[in-house]
Amino acid sequence: MSSAEATTKRHLQRPVSCAVLGAGGYAGGELLRILLAHPQAEVVLAASRSQAGKTIDTAHPNLDSNLRFEDVPPSVAAERAEVVFLALSHGESVAAVREMPKAKIVIDLSGDFRLATAEEYALAYGKKHEAPELIPAFRYGCPELARPGELGGATRIANPGCFATGAALALAPLAAKGLLRGTVVVNGVTGASGSGVTPSAGTHFPARDGNFKAYKVLSHQHEPEIAQTLARVASKGTAALHAPGVKPGFELVFTAHSAPLTRGIHTTATVELPDARSDVLEIYRGYFEKARFVKVREGPIELKGLAGTNKVSIGVATRGRHVVVTSAIDNMGKGAAGQAVQNMNLVLGLDEAAGLGFSGLYP
Amino acid sequence: MSSAEATTKRHLQRPVSCAVLGAGGYAGGELLRILLAHPQAEVVLAASRSQAGKTIDTAHPNLDSNLRFEDVPPSVAAERAEVVFLALSHGESVAAVREMPKAKIVIDLSGDFRLATAEEYALAYGKKHEAPELIPAFRYGCPELARPGELGGATRIANPGCFATGAALALAPLAAKGLLRGTVVVNGVTGASGSGVTPSAGTHFPARDGNFKAYKVLSHQHEPEIAQTLARVASKGTAALHAPGVKPGFELVFTAHSAPLTRGIHTTATVELPDARSDVLEIYRGYFEKARFVKVREGPIELKGLAGTNKVSIGVATRGRHVVVTSAIDNMGKGAAGQAVQNMNLVLGLDEAAGLGFSGLYP
Amino acid sequence: MSSAEATTKRHLQRPVSCAVLGAGGYAGGELLRILLAHPQAEVVLAASRSQAGKTIDTAHPNLDSNLRFEDVPPSVAAERAEVVFLALSHGESVAAVREMPKAKIVIDLSGDFRLATAEEYALAYGKKHEAPELIPAFRYGCPELARPGELGGATRIANPGCFATGAALALAPLAAKGLLRGTVVVNGVTGASGSGVTPSAGTHFPARDGNFKAYKVLSHQHEPEIAQTLARVASKGTAALHAPGVKPGFELVFTAHSAPLTRGIHTTATVELPDARSDVLEIYRGYFEKARFVKVREGPIELKGLAGTNKVSIGVATRGRHVVVTSAIDNMGKGAAGQAVQNMNLVLGLDEAAGLGFSGLYP
Amino acid sequence: MSSAEATTKRHLQRPVSCAVLGAGGYAGGELLRILLAHPQAEVVLAASRSQAGKTIDTAHPNLDSNLRFEDVPPSVAAERAEVVFLALSHGESVAAVREMPKAKIVIDLSGDFRLATAEEYALAYGKKHEAPELIPAFRYGCPELARPGELGGATRIANPGCFATGAALALAPLAAKGLLRGTVVVNGVTGASGSGVTPSAGTHFPARDGNFKAYKVLSHQHEPEIAQTLARVASKGTAALHAPGVKPGFELVFTAHSAPLTRGIHTTATVELPDARSDVLEIYRGYFEKARFVKVREGPIELKGLAGTNKVSIGVATRGRHVVVTSAIDNMGKGAAGQAVQNMNLVLGLDEAAGLGFSGLYP
Repeated sequence: MSSAEATTKRHLQRPVSCAVLGAGGYAGGELLRILLAHPQAEVVLAASRSQAGKTIDTAHPNLDSNLRFEDVPPSVAAERAEVVFLALSHGESVAAVREMPKAKIVIDLSGDFRLATAEEYALAYGKKHEAPELIPAFRYGCPELARPGELGGATRIANPGCFATGAALALAPLAAKGLLRGTVVVNGVTGASGSGVTPSAGTHFPARDGNFKAYKVLSHQHEPEIAQTLARVASKGTAALHAPGVKPGFELVFTAHSAPLTRGIHTTATVELPDARSDVLEIYRGYFEKARFVKVREGPIELKGLAGTNKVSIGVATRGRHVVVTSAIDNMGKGAAGQAVQNMNLVLGLDEAAGLGFSGLYP
Repeated sequence: MSSAEATTKRHLQRPVSCAVLGAGGYAGGELLRILLAHPQAEVVLAASRSQAGKTIDTAHPNLDSNLRFEDVPPSVAAERAEVVFLALSHGESVAAVREMPKAKIVIDLSGDFRLATAEEYALAYGKKHEAPELIPAFRYGCPELARPGELGGATRIANPGCFATGAALALAPLAAKGLLRGTVVVNGVTGASGSGVTPSAGTHFPARDGNFKAYKVLSHQHEPEIAQTLARVASKGTAALHAPGVKPGFELVFTAHSAPLTRGIHTTATVELPDARSDVLEIYRGYFEKARFVKVREGPIELKGLAGTNKVSIGVATRGRHVVVTSAIDNMGKGAAGQAVQNMNLVLGLDEAAGLGFSGLYP
Repeated sequence: MSSAEATTKRHLQRPVSCAVLGAGGYAGGELLRILLAHPQAEVVLAASRSQAGKTIDTAHPNLDSNLRFEDVPPSVAAERAEVVFLALSHGESVAAVREMPKAKIVIDLSGDFRLATAEEYALAYGKKHEAPELIPAFRYGCPELARPGELGGATRIANPGCFATGAALALAPLAAKGLLRGTVVVNGVTGASGSGVTPSAGTHFPARDGNFKAYKVLSHQHEPEIAQTLARVASKGTAALHAPGVKPGFELVFTAHSAPLTRGIHTTATVELPDARSDVLEIYRGYFEKARFVKVREGPIELKGLAGTNKVSIGVATRGRHVVVTSAIDNMGKGAAGQAVQNMNLVLGLDEAAGLGFSGLYP
Repeated sequence: MSSAEATTKRHLQRPVSCAVLGAGGYAGGELLRILLAHPQAEVVLAASRSQAGKTIDTAHPNLDSNLRFEDVPPSVAAERAEVVFLALSHGESVAAVREMPKAKIVIDLSGDFRLATAEEYALAYGKKHEAPELIPAFRYGCPELARPGELGGATRIANPGCFATGAALALAPLAAKGLLRGTVVVNGVTGASGSGVTPSAGTHFPARDGNFKAYKVLSHQHEPEIAQTLARVASKGTAALHAPGVKPGFELVFTAHSAPLTRGIHTTATVELPDARSDVLEIYRGYFEKARFVKVREGPIELKGLAGTNKVSIGVATRGRHVVVTSAIDNMGKGAAGQAVQNMNLVLGLDEAAGLGFSGLYP
């Protein structure tokens, strides 16, 4: 009996106890929404400093639950729960992880452990990594870009960034075939929920409505994450393991944009192949054959219908040596909470799609 | 006394008589709005088959005018007006131009005369050009990409496409310096007004709201228009003259996207220069030094504030050999009606900015 | 053993077979979405003339199902399915009901059978009712306004209108106490999905975005439906039975508005009570004590978070003799498909909330 | 020669010097936009504490001007400018007015001087008025509700609230005829710009997008302002003069709502007349016959097309004794900066519409 099978069996008897730190924010709320309806999970802690004492429907009016936010240290979360989700601000996760060395399973939604080295982190985030020694324990949790079973039994997961998820999924099939060379151009477009629950100039309705703009041009912190992921897929066949020093054989130019919508990441990747080829669509279909959340199609895909889901839509178009791949995800779903729960499912040997069955609304 | 000076003097005495064909649509309405407030213009005809007999505020509730739509043939328009604006559907302008050989000045907002040859037209629009012999009389009217005075005295203007305007302005300074090589990637994003006044699946509010998608991937009709314009700027120093056979020294990949907003075209162009250089921003500032509607800046630009104006915002960012240029225009303004009036002003030797002084709203 | 209990037991063994007529539209798609995930239902027919032959994800990209639309007459639907949902245009349901006299259970989402008499129908819809003899068989299916168990065993259900649902739920507690007198003012605001899947001038994105307006002022067809419902609640203690001739003891003025959003009905009802009273909130809490989908609160409620759910939020504020009650629902959920499935559940003696557990997204 | 004529003549020679305090906010920016293009005005000061030293296009990217924000006390503004506009937060205007007793003309856009007495102010705003002695000098500046010429020569203007403007204009014709009795119900809907430039929970894009809600139910500070205005129109024939103790002969119930749009106030007023009458539309047309910014029509009006204008659209519908009046304005235009400039024009004897000619965009 494999470890995964054993885990599964165990969970047939009792639910997985889950804690969410940073439960008052948008990603935290989405985690609660999914976990509260997850057939094999039980939320034992919704931790939030700012919301402490309030019922969770104060911050998340969509949730009907008697649960109250608590202000407890990470160590308490680790004692109470088998799985601790960190939906904290970038930089706060490092401290939390350090405070709970005995935590069984930690799934971190921040950017703190996504890059393989403290050096890359410093370049991307513009500050020193506070605990480089903790990085190697983390696996990069984009299940579609890992080998089958590879995430099973993991204890520390770095959940990918929203833009990074959309971009890496759009390009991984080409990376795996060694077809990414020269300059690879990726344009990402995000909804306002990606900026979190705290109001700011960029998410002020009068400024966002009817507007569209690029931001952090040539300096977005997800660019090195995307490059690292694709480099690993190309050289190792998996993005799951932090492998310092893996360099991409191409130059990535990623530009982030903000659009007047609430949820979603749309990615447009433009690639010049070494040679013209007619099998690009097949390459994508083959690569994602067993990916239950990914739908590949020729022609247009769209954001509509993905909010609240863990789904990925990928559209492929080819003309001679040029390929334009578009991908669409919900930044709160596959780009954050959905993927985190997918990771939990895989780590514990549960059904990968458990708790992630919502089909989305259209319109 | 130059011809332009003569024209100007003449117009100090009486206003320019203008006719708008297709006046019931969005571009037609925007032309009427600008022309009705233009200090040297007089609208003598608002032609619309579908709205004939109604006052113009029926279709354009923002306009206070006693003018009524009329259903008259193009020849009548040409008799009545010194300048005939064609705000017709793609394909209808050819017929209209053919029917009014004696028209003094025709400014066509459709795609019918934008490409230099019937062959290019057929490739881009997927149908035969009905009057190739009429093409050479047209000048391509993007004033910022023409030589000073070059449009003065022209009698037939092909007004550029909205995406084409945004993209060509974003890249012309590099084209002029011979810096466009290899693959040039352009992503355009449009508001829904670009699809016109007729409701359709793509502009249905429930489908557009909260959505974002690419469309006509690798097959948009503005791609060859952009390539042609930049090729001319590179080889001839102007985009104004239809010069068949001018080929770009680069490969353009243009992807159009639709966003949930009403007005605006945002363009993100990603270019790999032959060599790293630090003077890109200066190149742009120099190129547009005398362009009164263009603002160049380092860093982010945005759509907000441009609706109703003829302005162009351009943002430049450089990293080694890579340049990301973003541009923003109002698709109805600089991308259509505003540019058409700017062209009229130049053709007639009026102040280039006459009637185009609206500063935009923010927010 | 009651009939309802018998039904329930039967369904423990096999799922309820369901057919959706008009399955290509928005309400039809929402019905499919709910029914495909309903633990005790099976969709055996998705009928659509315009989409016949296509898989349902063509019209409803959110749905993953191999089901194909079929173009079959209502009689075939009635043979195949135990429950036939009619998501047809107003006026088409009459014909469908006439064509399937042997249908076991029919739940009609149109306005065809919502009013008690052909006379009221003619006044409200401006045309003759084609089959007045069919009306009496229908019960008006707003479960919260029916007596416990009253809908169990029904065979014909007229599903309430979206505005009518929001307004009647906002005022029923006052109606039941005999507190509605004089003029009762109701303002309803709807999202664009209420206009259906077919693009029109009112749902054209450029026209709807940034806009707000009233429409069908003093002539909306839901006004008599609301008045009838409240009159029955006041005089009969239930809205479920078509009781011709029941007149309200008040004058209703209902104004419909359209807002730039996709889903949702927000209602603001302003009432002048006969006397000042301090127990209005308690009246509401008491009235809806057992209503599982209704949440009553003091102070503001909002649309956000309700999309895709069958929930109702009600906010109550009082000042002297004046009461302002606001309610919020999803027009596609509690205002259409959600309520239809709730009705099915009650008719068949299933758990009222079966298949309606989605908690909504926030944001 | 009347004083107004004298003023006009004087201004033919030199422009009116204007100062804007609070110039960094939305209302301040809109004032700058209008005044910079006003043919008879000159902006001599844009005062802002937070933006001091920056050019005005930093806060208002739509404006092309070399003007810089300055941080100067109100007394300096009064010395430099003939007209001082106060676009300050509620409560700050009192202090500013106190600090510049010698100011020639002050136009205050806050709520500080809109109510006739300190008692009413305390009730509406929940705090003590800091300078009741200053109130009587102010005239209430809603030109359409003042007598011809009444505002000419005024030195202190309280510019009406945005909701108050929309509501008072919708009901004044009935008030003037003595037709408002019993309960009068007004529902107002606002865009997010009304909350100002500072981001907050209510204007956070993810929370506002797709949402609609009432707020400050039965406690909005504009309710007494509307009641006061209509009471004065009914009893005095003008709203311009602060007349303490004028009580309305009706009870107003005003409910404010927030909608997912940037600009606009839509008002729906529902009135029960003493008797049925068929001349309501004529009453409105007569009342506003000479109001250059008001358009009265039977049937629907809308917000679209009003952004940036000083226009008012009023729609009238009648059924028996019930009247539903809808009105639409731009909250930043007629609801704030536009009306303030209209007031300046009238005070100085300029053309009422000077600088207010922008016709709006559609779509």
